[in-house]
Amino acid sequence: MSRVTLMTAEEVEAFLEREFPQIHYGGRIYAVEAVGPLTARMRMTYHERHIRPGGTLSGPSIMALADLALYVAILAQLGPVALAVTTSLSFNFLRKPLPGDLIAECRLLKLGKRLAVGEVLLRSDGQAEIACHATGTYSIPDRT
Amino acid sequence: MSRVTLMTAEEVEAFLEREFPQIHYGGRIYAVEAVGPLTARMRMTYHERHIRPGGTLSGPSIMALADLALYVAILAQLGPVALAVTTSLSFNFLRKPLPGDLIAECRLLKLGKRLAVGEVLLRSDGQAEIACHATGTYSIPDRT
Amino acid sequence: MSRVTLMTAEEVEAFLEREFPQIHYGGRIYAVEAVGPLTARMRMTYHERHIRPGGTLSGPSIMALADLALYVAILAQLGPVALAVTTSLSFNFLRKPLPGDLIAECRLLKLGKRLAVGEVLLRSDGQAEIACHATGTYSIPDRT
Amino acid sequence: MSRVTLMTAEEVEAFLEREFPQIHYGGRIYAVEAVGPLTARMRMTYHERHIRPGGTLSGPSIMALADLALYVAILAQLGPVALAVTTSLSFNFLRKPLPGDLIAECRLLKLGKRLAVGEVLLRSDGQAEIACHATGTYSIPDRT
Repeated sequence: MSRVTLMTAEEVEAFLEREFPQIHYGGRIYAVEAVGPLTARMRMTYHERHIRPGGTLSGPSIMALADLALYVAILAQLGPVALAVTTSLSFNFLRKPLPGDLIAECRLLKLGKRLAVGEVLLRSDGQAEIACHATGTYSIPDRT
Repeated sequence: MSRVTLMTAEEVEAFLEREFPQIHYGGRIYAVEAVGPLTARMRMTYHERHIRPGGTLSGPSIMALADLALYVAILAQLGPVALAVTTSLSFNFLRKPLPGDLIAECRLLKLGKRLAVGEVLLRSDGQAEIACHATGTYSIPDRT
Repeated sequence: MSRVTLMTAEEVEAFLEREFPQIHYGGRIYAVEAVGPLTARMRMTYHERHIRPGGTLSGPSIMALADLALYVAILAQLGPVALAVTTSLSFNFLRKPLPGDLIAECRLLKLGKRLAVGEVLLRSDGQAEIACHATGTYSIPDRT
Repeated sequence: MSRVTLMTAEEVEAFLEREFPQIHYGGRIYAVEAVGPLTARMRMTYHERHIRPGGTLSGPSIMALADLALYVAILAQLGPVALAVTTSLSFNFLRKPLPGDLIAECRLLKLGKRLAVGEVLLRSDGQAEIACHATGTYSIPDRT
């Protein structure tokens, strides 16, 4: 699976901006830090609307970042024409994230004709320990 | 598993209001419609910040509702002292929700001393077909 | 999703017999008890090779039955030409099964062109409580 | 999470032999190849009873190996007193395994007081590509 990406991090970000402006509703918090062959790294900036008692991040904000990281990894690989949709997501919440940015590192385990499957490790910025482990599947539309 | 709930829907809602005001950030959209023995029904009002192209709901907003429905079912059963935390969540996204309210029906499959496990069926209001099927696990703190 | 099944329980069993004789390796323990629109019920006979300390059933034998129940429900719906393959399975083990037969009740939540998604409830014969809850996805080959 | 293991691969194997002789029913096929801090590597020898049409391995045999690899990693870490039980398992089947031995590499992502969570990568012997990705949770009994 040595593959060349079709989009840069900047191109993916511009695409998201254009096609999914809603993800920035309430303040811009998602950034594509890097994309590579079957990989992507995203950052979610710490923001009031995701904070839960004790300063930790809400579960849904963690899940949103994982889902987005998978999508970004697929986009970078397949290019802007891809209208992939999430078909499944699974999460194990391992440790409470610290108050601060959350980093998602995604690796695609399979990029088939119909399905892409990947895993995402989510950590508080600068921490070694994993706060949440996610796996997910996207359905890839037929390309003609 | 014939059990008596310890909180009414109104009590659960008041508890969420007090302990987790952040979930209403940006507009009140979650309502506890009913709780019963090992069950809960929630409604998420259609809101601009969850809309995606074509009028459908964002995946993260669906996931947030499922997580909350599980928590509400556990709270109703165990009472307001419970500081349960999500340890895992799994989602199968089956059909795009319609533009409109989303209803979550949660059933706890197990409510043990340490773990609660439940499933959540998510449907667009008034629809028979399931938009998303979720299962989740909460860790229950030791009670003394 | 009111659908007519294309195969009876007997036809599905004969198909499995012919195409997957290996599942009966070491003794015939699986029986298709019923199929219906998007549903299937299977029985796994209690057998020495699946017993674990205390008389309970091994996890893998429970998982095997769940996977087979999903396949049977799909077969009954699509007919014998379908070469579906499992793409994902998730299990929550809720209670130890009793020493005895295990019953699987499968319901397909979605039967699309490319993907079938279903859930399976596994109980010890005659028990109301669920021993294991499973969800799974099969990839459906293109039909021409 | 720099931890010292309490059991060697040989000790874990002897423990399994003594406590779970049933896993060798029909022929000895599981071997503990290595254990390390929060890791384990297992081998499943290719055996007639796990073969499916085309020479590939059955799904249940792959799931059994993943479950066992998680258990072995936990045992090595906690020692022989641990009576951990599987509470959840999730699998993504990515590619058909080749006819031959299957290798499982397990890494524990969390080893808490009550829950252990890990992932398992399963590959055909000598192959780089992942045939199946698994995650699982074990409940750890109270230690006194």
